[in-house]
Amino acid sequence: MTAAFIPDYSHPDRNRRVLLTGRPVGIPQPEHFALDECDLEPVGEGQFRVRNIYLSVDPAQRGWSNEAANYSAAVPLGSVMRALAVGVIVETRNEEFAVGQYVYGWFGWQDYAVVGPDALMTRIGEVAAPLSAYAGVLGMNGLTAYLALTKVGRPVEGNTVLVTTAAGAVGSLAGQLAKQAGCRVVGLTGDDEKVARCTGRFGFDAAANYKSGDLDDIVAALVPDGTDVYYDNVGGPILDTVIRTMNVGGRIVQCGTASIANWIPVPSGLRNEREVLMRRLQWGGFVIFDHMADFPAALEYLAPLVADGTLVHDEDIATGFDGAPGAIARLYAGENVGKSLIFVG
Amino acid sequence: MTAAFIPDYSHPDRNRRVLLTGRPVGIPQPEHFALDECDLEPVGEGQFRVRNIYLSVDPAQRGWSNEAANYSAAVPLGSVMRALAVGVIVETRNEEFAVGQYVYGWFGWQDYAVVGPDALMTRIGEVAAPLSAYAGVLGMNGLTAYLALTKVGRPVEGNTVLVTTAAGAVGSLAGQLAKQAGCRVVGLTGDDEKVARCTGRFGFDAAANYKSGDLDDIVAALVPDGTDVYYDNVGGPILDTVIRTMNVGGRIVQCGTASIANWIPVPSGLRNEREVLMRRLQWGGFVIFDHMADFPAALEYLAPLVADGTLVHDEDIATGFDGAPGAIARLYAGENVGKSLIFVG
Repeated sequence: MTAAFIPDYSHPDRNRRVLLTGRPVGIPQPEHFALDECDLEPVGEGQFRVRNIYLSVDPAQRGWSNEAANYSAAVPLGSVMRALAVGVIVETRNEEFAVGQYVYGWFGWQDYAVVGPDALMTRIGEVAAPLSAYAGVLGMNGLTAYLALTKVGRPVEGNTVLVTTAAGAVGSLAGQLAKQAGCRVVGLTGDDEKVARCTGRFGFDAAANYKSGDLDDIVAALVPDGTDVYYDNVGGPILDTVIRTMNVGGRIVQCGTASIANWIPVPSGLRNEREVLMRRLQWGGFVIFDHMADFPAALEYLAPLVADGTLVHDEDIATGFDGAPGAIARLYAGENVGKSLIFVG
Repeated sequence: MTAAFIPDYSHPDRNRRVLLTGRPVGIPQPEHFALDECDLEPVGEGQFRVRNIYLSVDPAQRGWSNEAANYSAAVPLGSVMRALAVGVIVETRNEEFAVGQYVYGWFGWQDYAVVGPDALMTRIGEVAAPLSAYAGVLGMNGLTAYLALTKVGRPVEGNTVLVTTAAGAVGSLAGQLAKQAGCRVVGLTGDDEKVARCTGRFGFDAAANYKSGDLDDIVAALVPDGTDVYYDNVGGPILDTVIRTMNVGGRIVQCGTASIANWIPVPSGLRNEREVLMRRLQWGGFVIFDHMADFPAALEYLAPLVADGTLVHDEDIATGFDGAPGAIARLYAGENVGKSLIFVG
């Protein structure tokens, strides 16, 4: 595999960026952002300048843009939209980081970021896959799928693992990794084409479109022997249904709540505490940023599976900043196919 | 300490018993039971006859009497109400179990049970406390408090532990055991007298009557630094409130759902999956019957704490079968003080 073509960034002068200019309630829409351009800022001692190549579009950006407290502070109005990105160091005042080093981290939706080492998620050593992979299957998505599954889901051979947003950037990987662990893997997703991708391309044992009929019936048909591990990215009524199929001692990985567009006020749903009790569930929340110490070991496991094609993954790559303001809404509308990225190289 | 006075049961002839005769929806009431008397049944090979001394009254009996699937099968109509009890073997056809052996197990609400070893929870060796203790602090209540706290709650020194039904048979012990682990322990309970018992007799750092004002304010005042371990026996709106005070990485022990009188249809409440995610909670259900292998080690820890008075506990002992039909409803009405037992010796 070869890295993407990288233009010459050695003489930058202006920085294009996407600012958060409105405070969304729920899913951010194009009107909450503005495109902008400014001069480059200087690189301070210990810092380096990263030229972004692939900007990441992630469900978590909804929370970061909202007012309500999240596991990260809200992005201040008027500042660059927080985002992960893959880029290359083009200027450095840190001797540990040379020009030409590829990096993945908190560089924001902009051309250039001036940051220090604490902004990095991973330092890309030998480039063993297309650079875009380091923002997806070898970035947060793959790390999340692998670490959430192994640390909270703890599947064992023969388990039934049910994954939501099963055709998505994280879900499709969680399912494939559960297959690697010897499990029966089933998925729920939002349209028939994605169902076909789950059972075809991603190798799920079964999958269903949750909109295609009665939810109880759909889930019951997927898991005739109950659910041992529920890898949940959506919450909401699907969670309420699946939890009632869990086997005794089952594990729920709460990795996202994408089905709920707005948490203010907190919506109601079926009470689930009796299910937790009677089924002796272990229901755990997973936020990848708690697990950075485990990234190197996780990448050691994942990289060969990506390199040899065992772990298949898709990317939905837009080009240029124009699509950025609508990119999060597009994600929540389920319009992307695979990991959503914006190429700005 | 001396064992309770045990009359001579060597020549029984009739068996008084409490039958489940109606199928309650929710909390069983007196009209769902009938008193009855019958001849003694013969003791089969490998079995023994237990003369019950203390019958246990437990919240879980609600579930056992209901139609809805529970973690145990429903008690069939017309049969003896399922219950734990402490008794003494008065006749045996099992050479491993001698007459005079005190035992604790599934003997039902009746004078005499003919059972085999699989009906036993614990075999009472040296009687180191009043016999009634073996149905409470050294029975299911103490074992539940200890094993649920240590295996699901996993408190560490300095944690804040919040306990519901804090003055109850399990809650009061969970709180005291968390204090032993070096935690700050706070409790919620249903009246001011119980609040005083929590902070007085049971040594909680603070306690409150959840009915005494706005629930959010009451809980916030109890846990100004948030909740690390929530030992929950009630579920419902109290759970919805406390979960929103949990610190990152907190643990919820779901040990009961006593605040919900009826699960058919399943009631609604605030959606809690986002709390699980953002606070990275670990929410686990605990049913004591999964942990029988741990009983001997748990009793080894608990018995000295009971014997030396470290672990204080209360018993609410009624005498005779007449009160049995109303005993479960009385429990759910919070009218008992401490572990509810019926003395039938």
